[in-house]
Amino acid sequence: MKVLRANTNFGTTKYEEVPDDWRRYGGRALVARFLLDEVPPFCDPLGPYNKLIWAPGLLVGHMLSSVDRISLGGKSPLTGGVKEANAGGSTGMRMAWLRLFVLILEGGPSGDDSWQLLYVGQDGAHFESAADLVGLGLEETGRRLRQRFDDKISVSAIGPAGERLYRTAGITHMDKDRNLTRISARGGLGAVMGSKKLKAIIFDHPRSNLPEVANKQAFKEVSLRYLRSLQAHPQTSEIYTQYGTAAMVHICNTFGALPTRSFSQGNFEGAEEISGEHIKEVNESRGGQISHACMAGCTIKCSNLFAGQDGQVIVTPLEYETIGLMGSNLGISDVDIIARLNAIANDMGMDTIDTGAALGVAAEAGLMRYGDGEQALALMEEIVQDTPLGRIISNGAKIAGEVLGITRVPVVKGQAISAYDPRAIKGTGVTYATSPQGADHTCGLTIRAKIDHLKPEGQVRLSRTSQYNNAGYDSLGACIFGGFGFGMDISLVPDLINARYGWGVGENYLFELGKKTIDLEREFNRRAGFTPADDRLPEWMTREKLPPNDAVLDVPESELDSIFD
Amino acid sequence: MKVLRANTNFGTTKYEEVPDDWRRYGGRALVARFLLDEVPPFCDPLGPYNKLIWAPGLLVGHMLSSVDRISLGGKSPLTGGVKEANAGGSTGMRMAWLRLFVLILEGGPSGDDSWQLLYVGQDGAHFESAADLVGLGLEETGRRLRQRFDDKISVSAIGPAGERLYRTAGITHMDKDRNLTRISARGGLGAVMGSKKLKAIIFDHPRSNLPEVANKQAFKEVSLRYLRSLQAHPQTSEIYTQYGTAAMVHICNTFGALPTRSFSQGNFEGAEEISGEHIKEVNESRGGQISHACMAGCTIKCSNLFAGQDGQVIVTPLEYETIGLMGSNLGISDVDIIARLNAIANDMGMDTIDTGAALGVAAEAGLMRYGDGEQALALMEEIVQDTPLGRIISNGAKIAGEVLGITRVPVVKGQAISAYDPRAIKGTGVTYATSPQGADHTCGLTIRAKIDHLKPEGQVRLSRTSQYNNAGYDSLGACIFGGFGFGMDISLVPDLINARYGWGVGENYLFELGKKTIDLEREFNRRAGFTPADDRLPEWMTREKLPPNDAVLDVPESELDSIFD
Repeated sequence: MKVLRANTNFGTTKYEEVPDDWRRYGGRALVARFLLDEVPPFCDPLGPYNKLIWAPGLLVGHMLSSVDRISLGGKSPLTGGVKEANAGGSTGMRMAWLRLFVLILEGGPSGDDSWQLLYVGQDGAHFESAADLVGLGLEETGRRLRQRFDDKISVSAIGPAGERLYRTAGITHMDKDRNLTRISARGGLGAVMGSKKLKAIIFDHPRSNLPEVANKQAFKEVSLRYLRSLQAHPQTSEIYTQYGTAAMVHICNTFGALPTRSFSQGNFEGAEEISGEHIKEVNESRGGQISHACMAGCTIKCSNLFAGQDGQVIVTPLEYETIGLMGSNLGISDVDIIARLNAIANDMGMDTIDTGAALGVAAEAGLMRYGDGEQALALMEEIVQDTPLGRIISNGAKIAGEVLGITRVPVVKGQAISAYDPRAIKGTGVTYATSPQGADHTCGLTIRAKIDHLKPEGQVRLSRTSQYNNAGYDSLGACIFGGFGFGMDISLVPDLINARYGWGVGENYLFELGKKTIDLEREFNRRAGFTPADDRLPEWMTREKLPPNDAVLDVPESELDSIFD
Repeated sequence: MKVLRANTNFGTTKYEEVPDDWRRYGGRALVARFLLDEVPPFCDPLGPYNKLIWAPGLLVGHMLSSVDRISLGGKSPLTGGVKEANAGGSTGMRMAWLRLFVLILEGGPSGDDSWQLLYVGQDGAHFESAADLVGLGLEETGRRLRQRFDDKISVSAIGPAGERLYRTAGITHMDKDRNLTRISARGGLGAVMGSKKLKAIIFDHPRSNLPEVANKQAFKEVSLRYLRSLQAHPQTSEIYTQYGTAAMVHICNTFGALPTRSFSQGNFEGAEEISGEHIKEVNESRGGQISHACMAGCTIKCSNLFAGQDGQVIVTPLEYETIGLMGSNLGISDVDIIARLNAIANDMGMDTIDTGAALGVAAEAGLMRYGDGEQALALMEEIVQDTPLGRIISNGAKIAGEVLGITRVPVVKGQAISAYDPRAIKGTGVTYATSPQGADHTCGLTIRAKIDHLKPEGQVRLSRTSQYNNAGYDSLGACIFGGFGFGMDISLVPDLINARYGWGVGENYLFELGKKTIDLEREFNRRAGFTPADDRLPEWMTREKLPPNDAVLDVPESELDSIFD
């Protein structure tokens, strides 16, 4: 395994040995270690001293179900702190097959300020011109790149959002079978890539080349145990497979936690129309695909290809967070509208959560009526056209609020809250407040815990455990849904790691890996200037009661500040 | 002397005794003490927990030349930290004559969410409707208020900028003779007032009612010594009187520190046309007023009434910072254009420094051509019309940069750098970086020191002394130009304070008062989440050489971090 270091300014690429200090890190953990080691904590996130890293998780490359995720990382232009944004697709697997431990992108724009792409193949890496791709949406970018190289490449690319330095810009992972589907969405890493004027990275490697494992037989056996575990859980064998993440709509609506009209209500009168059950029915009737794997080998297949009335795919995938933020959050119950909003965001290469939250802020400012899908589409068109109004929305909810004079803004550390209102699911609220990543449900969702989600008691402990576990999964390269399988047998993760690497790790490995990761992340944030002032949910949520439960934030701040002590 | 506490939410007013802990504070020092005592450091600056304070300096009310300034303070929506913005005019004097030690504004909008004004007279204070003033510019607001009350009132009011929560919004102090002229401009305190839906405060008190002094004879004698000192200094008896603050244009241009085309150059080919000498000549030839007192009793009279070609006053006053930020910074050398830009900002109630810096950012983004005054005026019209583009600019340079994707942004702690490029006047750069207020020349200008301004050596010490002195003056209610007088005899300040209060303070009183003030401010900022990460000048200025001296930032960061140790 090698480190590939590519400098956009000088156009140089260099393969290096993996530093000893890094060998036991992968994915999110490696991002944190790397940032501490190489990125000046005060640096301008869009300046030449920031770096971007592609880090596959520790168990990536084996086509284990839901365990081929790629972590991207850097200093976030949205939060100003550590940012790790992981995604499915084939990028992680390809990097492992190319024997890349990590890819590090550094430097500012090229000397002649032109747009470039980085090609990485079995025989080496080099920069090429990307002049022909500038300004193109991701769909067309993917198509042209597959023409230019071949059909088998994996691509990480930015759309116009990243080129224009929008703080909602993500980096999209594409291949022939999964064009547009997977995005390292959160925290504006696409703008970091854009600031270096790199349009795309091509991972070219047609042959299967699984990483070597320390104990083949053991690895095979544990893999099978893990697979059976996943297949035995109804959530991962049935519910997500049938309904995708949209299965959450009904659950959140029941809990009074479904963001509705810019987080002013927790239940939505149109919830039925945007539910997983309804979407499945509609999609099936139109000939769409209800279950699709975003990573090779995944047996959950929670993704989908959502078809319009004409049977043509509008967007892939249509997911719960988007449905919440671009649907109920805007008072929109028409799934076709939501799918179209989603499709525009995907082609631009934007985070639908922060964009949806910013659209909600725009609605608060009177720029659209809640429930008016055509107005929402018109605002997305402002973004496509790069108008001043479009730029206000495309820089996320925080900046939209600042510019539009709206103080009811759902953000933590500058990053929009995802589709679980923290007043009604308080453990997840604790996660939003205290995660080094900013508000992010994947950092520690607590909705499945057997607890009264409206009461403040016990939420901090619950969130802490969830945050450590998820940071662990993010470092392994495992999707959080993989956790349904891993969670059924605590020895699965250490057994897999020991079979893969021969490290002899113990039973608490996952928790320890997660804890180590969060400790490193908090240290980077501390150096970058974060304090307890940053570990707070929006002040207005302490005052404004959330119907139907009239819930407010009431987990004591002292508990938030001592969560990781 | 009393504390007047007015609650916009409940419509209540209450007179209280001055807390013992506050008696030795005034102006900026009192703002800092008050913020620590009463404002939750994490609060939303535009939420109901923030408070606004009107605090006259310790020596205000006696019509001492240049010593009647009023300090406004609160948590800044621009910087997120302590904010004190002082101004001349008659507000401070009127408060002293009304025996108001301090006015504290607290609470959110009124219960029925309507716009109010606060009337403060000799017989008490009360809220009234301001429904008829909503949306009006400051000129018309002042006119109507003098009709509604009488000609002798002093007013602190916000324009549309404050109503719309623009982060460049200031609070303007007006009276019959000085309509529009004096603004507590920096840090967005007008937006704080707007967030409470308070349009104006009327200070109604026609009779002269000078504060009592402990030793009348001594006070009279020291006052005279101070006056003679001011009159003896050529800067305050001649240069500022003749040319106003615009006298700085030539000096800064010579030092290569005049912000030109968004801080890309330190000398401007059109400097002659925007110089104090040229402005005086033009203004005199048109029948404008070249020397005008912003405070009763001021002998410096650095202000002016600038007339257009038709002899009608375009703006009052036309000052150096505006000329720098809205003139050379935009490549504009036509003083009539600068005066018109200034007049629009004044009527809207906006900080011309942050607005000018934001226009520079807009020019970097291609939204206007440098030197094109009509385009600059058109952008100001976008602000007047409250368009999305207008809102981008009117929220200041930092947010404009974030939205428009420009990283070359001249701000510290979110506040725009004033008209001294920190690469060419390095001591002032140290002040920008380390002042708890954010970039602000009045916190510690060093341009008159006998030092090589391009060398990093000695700048930290110079800045520290200047910052302490200026924080002291800001707490006395003295204009920094008063410092030319005070500086000639170190006993003047303690003698005045002892004659006024009988406190028996020593020779280092000014320095100690300033140090205490900055210590308190830093403590508030620390509690609000500030760290050394916030004490940095823009990163790009460490790389981009400033012509004609090819200067970059090079004062060691370790020196910045230990400046107040």
